[in-house]
Amino acid sequence: MIGRLNHVAIAVPDLEAASAQYRNALGAKVGAPQDEPDHGVTVVFIELPNTKIELLYPLGENSPIQGFLDKNPSGGIHHICYEVDDIITARDHLLETGARVLGTGEPKIGAHGKPVLFLHPKDFSGCLVELEQV
Amino acid sequence: MIGRLNHVAIAVPDLEAASAQYRNALGAKVGAPQDEPDHGVTVVFIELPNTKIELLYPLGENSPIQGFLDKNPSGGIHHICYEVDDIITARDHLLETGARVLGTGEPKIGAHGKPVLFLHPKDFSGCLVELEQV
Repeated sequence: MIGRLNHVAIAVPDLEAASAQYRNALGAKVGAPQDEPDHGVTVVFIELPNTKIELLYPLGENSPIQGFLDKNPSGGIHHICYEVDDIITARDHLLETGARVLGTGEPKIGAHGKPVLFLHPKDFSGCLVELEQV
Repeated sequence: MIGRLNHVAIAVPDLEAASAQYRNALGAKVGAPQDEPDHGVTVVFIELPNTKIELLYPLGENSPIQGFLDKNPSGGIHHICYEVDDIITARDHLLETGARVLGTGEPKIGAHGKPVLFLHPKDFSGCLVELEQV
């Protein structure tokens, strides 16, 4: 069912410092910060040959990553995102197996403009999993 | 400098349950458990079209992931691994930029039989980074 690893998202307490580390110390291709006000984050995309890293920094009030950074002040990996062909089919299959989908269970439009869902970390070894329809 | 994302490693408290979730709920291609006594882990490889997920479970005394699981009893993402062409050149460049290499600073042979180094999580937004020479 799941396809490619679309991205790994890392919540960071200092977007400029994190970008500089990836650009200078790791020699990666690091983009410019992009505000995503609908998602409460500013994102920096790091392009690797086979996937992307996304650095996430809180934007505005009630950012969904503020709580994570309060608990992890140095930052850390926030979630990983797998691609699926059909998010409704994927969701229905997951629910049948007993996995929990976060929120209302209806896909939302994610930061890439595509339908996404998040799965409960307790069902996936403590790892927050995003599914994105591609 | 860094190339492909080689893998995402997830430490899990129950290898059978985690394998079943990836195989059944996410429909992924999940391998058989492989003991890596030299590295203190049993590993399950999950092949995605563009990269791998590695489920890690402690093996023997003094497993390097036991402390992580003590702190994160549900499991969680333990590290991410980037590929490099030349690990000594990569290490020397990292040290010049002020990044810290864990251990002696000399590469060890990792679970894939190739030279690896680990970088200090505090220098990479709380994320433990492995470099593997490919």
